[in-house]
Amino acid sequence: MTNLNREMKLGAFFMIPGHHVAAWRHPKAEAQSVMNFDFIKRLAQTAERGKFDMIFLADGYSIKGKDPKALGQTVNTFFEPFTLLSALSSVTKHIGLAGTVSTTFNEPFNVARRFASLDHLSGGRAAWNVVTSNTESEARNFNLEKHLLHSKRYERAEEFVDIVTKLWDSWEDDALIIDKESAQFADASKIHAIDHKGKWFSVEGPLNISRSVQGHPVVIQAGSSEAGKELAARTAEVIFTAWQTLEEAQAFYADVKGRMAKYGRSPEELKIMPGVFPVIGRTEEEAEQNKRLLEEIIPEEAGVQLLSAMISVDLSGYPVDGPLPNLPDLEQVNGGKSRFQLLKDLAERENLTIRGLYQRIAGARGHREINGTPEQIADQMQEWFENGAADGFNIMPPYLPGGLEDFVDLVIPILQERGLFRTEYTGNTLRENLGLKRPANTLIHHAKETI
Amino acid sequence: MTNLNREMKLGAFFMIPGHHVAAWRHPKAEAQSVMNFDFIKRLAQTAERGKFDMIFLADGYSIKGKDPKALGQTVNTFFEPFTLLSALSSVTKHIGLAGTVSTTFNEPFNVARRFASLDHLSGGRAAWNVVTSNTESEARNFNLEKHLLHSKRYERAEEFVDIVTKLWDSWEDDALIIDKESAQFADASKIHAIDHKGKWFSVEGPLNISRSVQGHPVVIQAGSSEAGKELAARTAEVIFTAWQTLEEAQAFYADVKGRMAKYGRSPEELKIMPGVFPVIGRTEEEAEQNKRLLEEIIPEEAGVQLLSAMISVDLSGYPVDGPLPNLPDLEQVNGGKSRFQLLKDLAERENLTIRGLYQRIAGARGHREINGTPEQIADQMQEWFENGAADGFNIMPPYLPGGLEDFVDLVIPILQERGLFRTEYTGNTLRENLGLKRPANTLIHHAKETI
Repeated sequence: MTNLNREMKLGAFFMIPGHHVAAWRHPKAEAQSVMNFDFIKRLAQTAERGKFDMIFLADGYSIKGKDPKALGQTVNTFFEPFTLLSALSSVTKHIGLAGTVSTTFNEPFNVARRFASLDHLSGGRAAWNVVTSNTESEARNFNLEKHLLHSKRYERAEEFVDIVTKLWDSWEDDALIIDKESAQFADASKIHAIDHKGKWFSVEGPLNISRSVQGHPVVIQAGSSEAGKELAARTAEVIFTAWQTLEEAQAFYADVKGRMAKYGRSPEELKIMPGVFPVIGRTEEEAEQNKRLLEEIIPEEAGVQLLSAMISVDLSGYPVDGPLPNLPDLEQVNGGKSRFQLLKDLAERENLTIRGLYQRIAGARGHREINGTPEQIADQMQEWFENGAADGFNIMPPYLPGGLEDFVDLVIPILQERGLFRTEYTGNTLRENLGLKRPANTLIHHAKETI
Repeated sequence: MTNLNREMKLGAFFMIPGHHVAAWRHPKAEAQSVMNFDFIKRLAQTAERGKFDMIFLADGYSIKGKDPKALGQTVNTFFEPFTLLSALSSVTKHIGLAGTVSTTFNEPFNVARRFASLDHLSGGRAAWNVVTSNTESEARNFNLEKHLLHSKRYERAEEFVDIVTKLWDSWEDDALIIDKESAQFADASKIHAIDHKGKWFSVEGPLNISRSVQGHPVVIQAGSSEAGKELAARTAEVIFTAWQTLEEAQAFYADVKGRMAKYGRSPEELKIMPGVFPVIGRTEEEAEQNKRLLEEIIPEEAGVQLLSAMISVDLSGYPVDGPLPNLPDLEQVNGGKSRFQLLKDLAERENLTIRGLYQRIAGARGHREINGTPEQIADQMQEWFENGAADGFNIMPPYLPGGLEDFVDLVIPILQERGLFRTEYTGNTLRENLGLKRPANTLIHHAKETI
C-alpha cells in the first residue's frame, strides 16, 4: 500500500489565537496578541521552519451571531486575508500564502488582480481558496437582505473562477520586453482582452498586471456538495475538506478524482487535503488532559452559538444538557450543505446532547480530531495518506502558538523520519512544492486578435 | 509671513519606475525591476530614511489606452495597492502607507475592513486616498458599458465614505477585554451595528475587526471640482492637488479651508499637499540637461496617448507638430474635470503644439514641475509653504530610484537645515506625524442600543 516517492502536502491553517472556539482562554494561548502582527509573523516563521507547504487563512464578512453574551465570549476580530498574507510575504521566503476570498461579495477583476499582485510580491507563493458566502448576516453587509440561493451562488462562483483564470492569462509570459533602446516596454500583441460577457459578469480585460510567477496562483476549493465536487474536479488544484472516518474520506477521494477525466485532467493535478485538528500530548494521558481542558474552557453561550451557526438553527432556547431538537430536512438548509449533514450524522451516531455536540465540534468544527502522542498522530495521518484518503492535510492547531510549535517540533520530525514529508523546500514556488504543473496560458490559442 | 513651529508634510508618491511617462527609458531607471518587490522595498526604505510622512500609491482598474504601439511603449503593469502597502508594512517602521482605492468599483464593507486591517498591521500608518473612477475602459471591467456620470460618482462616493467611517467606529476603542478568567473576550455593549440604509448601499455592520490604531486611517482626497472641494472640506484630512502657480494654489487653499467651518472643522484638520515633480541637478545646467533628456526619451505614440487620455479626446489623428484641435466644452467632459481645465489653460497660455504639450506634462501630468538645484527646489517649496499655498507636498520623482535618492540626499537636508522639515519621526502613527487628531468615535453617542 505504501506510496514510495510521494510526500504529504501540509497546510498550516491559521485561526488566531487557535481553532478551538475557546482557544483564547487556553492558559498557553497568546490571547492578547490577536491583532499583533509580530505574533502572527512569529507563527508564520514557525510554520516555515516546519516546512509546511502553505499558511491557510479562512475568511468571513460579518461577526458571528448577535447574542450579546456569546458575542462577548468569542473572537470576532480578524485580519483581512489579502493584507495579512501580503504583510507575511515580505517576512517569509518559502511558505505558500493561501487566502480565502468569496465569489459572492467581490468582483472578479479585483480578485484576479490582488492574487496576481500577491503572487508577484511573494515570488510565486499565492493561492486562492474559492468560497461562496452563505450567511444572512454577511448578505446584510452587502446591500442584500437574503443570501443567494445555494445553486445561484455556485453558478456565480463558476463564472467568477473562469473570469479570474482568463484574466491571469491576459498577459502572455513573455509579453514584457523592457528594451530602453527600441522603446519597447511590452509586446502589445501578447496582451489580450478577454471580452467576457456572461450571466453574472461582463469583464473586458486585460488585467493591469503582468502574468504572475506561478502563471495562475494555486486554486483551492472546499465545497463538498455535488455542485462543489463538480466545480473542484474541473477547476481546483487543492481541496480542503472535512471527514471523520477513513471510509468517508476514501469515498470522497475516489469520487472527486474520478470526475476529473471528463475535464481532461489527471488525478495528480488535484491534491486532496482533509483538515486535522491535532490535540498532542507527550503521553496519551497528557493528550487526554489537553482534550478535557479544551472542553472545559468553552463558555456555554459561545458553545451553543457555535453549534447554532453551524447548523443554521437557533439552539439558544433549548436545555443545553438535553437532546438536540428535530432538525430541518437537508433540502431546507441554504447554507453549507455538507457541514450540516456531517453534524446531523454525528449527533445521531453518538446520541449527543447539545453540550456534548458543541464540545465535540468546538475545535475541529466538523474536521477530523486526532488526539494522542506525536507517534499516534503521525500514524493516523500516515494511514489516511497511504490508503487513498488524502494527499496531505490542513493542520488546525487548537491554540497558538503552542499547538503549532508542538506539531512542528514533535510530529513533523516523525513524518520526516518516515520519509512522508520534506526536510527542505525543493520548489521555488508553492506550485512546485505542491507538485502541480505551471498552467499553460489558455488565451494564447483562443485570442483571435490582440486588443 | 514665516510660520514658525510648523513643518512641511511630505508624501513620496511612488509610480514605478517613475512619474515621467518615459521614466522606464531613463538610463538610470531600474526598469527591469517594475515587478520586483525587493526594488520597491528599497525605495520605501529610502523614503523612510528621508523621514517622509508617507508613501503614496495611485491606482486604476484598466490598462491605459489600446493603441498597440502606445500600449507597447508604456508601463501597464502595477502592484495592487492593498497588497503592496501591506507587504511594505512589515519592512518599514515609521512611514505612512497611503493607498488609492476607488469608491466606484468596490464595496464599503470590504474597503473599511482592508484599511482597518492595514492600520492594525502597520501599527497605525494606513491612509486611504478616496477617488472616483471615470474611464470607460475601467467601467468595462466591472459589468458596465459606460462610467457613472460625474455627479452620480460623487454622490456614491459621499455615501461610501460615510459608511466606511461608521464601520471604523463600529467597535469602541475599549471593546476588547480579553480576560480569560471571566470568559470575557469583548464587551458586546461596545460593538455597534451601523444599520446604514442609503441610496447606494445597505450595510448593517459591525465590522469584523476591532477599531484600528489610528481610530480612522487618514482620509485623503484629490478632487478639485466643486463637488470634490465640498466633500474634502467635510471629510478629508489630506488633499493631494495639482497647481501650476502660487496664485492658483493660494486661491484653492483659501477656498477649501474656508469651507470647513460650516462642518465644525478647523483649518488645521486638513493638510493641503500639492504635487511636485522635481527635476534636480547639482547645477542649473545639469538640471536643464536632465529635463531635456526626459523630453527626448518620450516615444511619440506614448506621448500622444498620454495627452489624449488626460483630456478625453483622441489626438492620434492630428499632426504631432501642429496645434491642438478645438477642444470640447468643459460641460461635455465627464472625466477629471479639473485636470481637463488645467491642460486647456496651459495649452492656450503657452501656445503649445501637441508635442509641446505632451512634453510639458509627460512628467508632472498637470502637477507643478520644479527644475533646478537642490537649493532652488527648496526655495520654491518654501515659498508656497510660507505663503498660504500648501501645508506640504507630494513628491513625484521623475524616475526611480535616482529621482527619489537625489531628493532625499540633496533637497531634504536643506529643508531640515531651514527648520522646515523633521529630522526624526516624532509621532507613533501617521496621524501623529501629520499633526492630525485621533478622531473620536462618532457612533458612541448615536447608537441607541447594541447589536
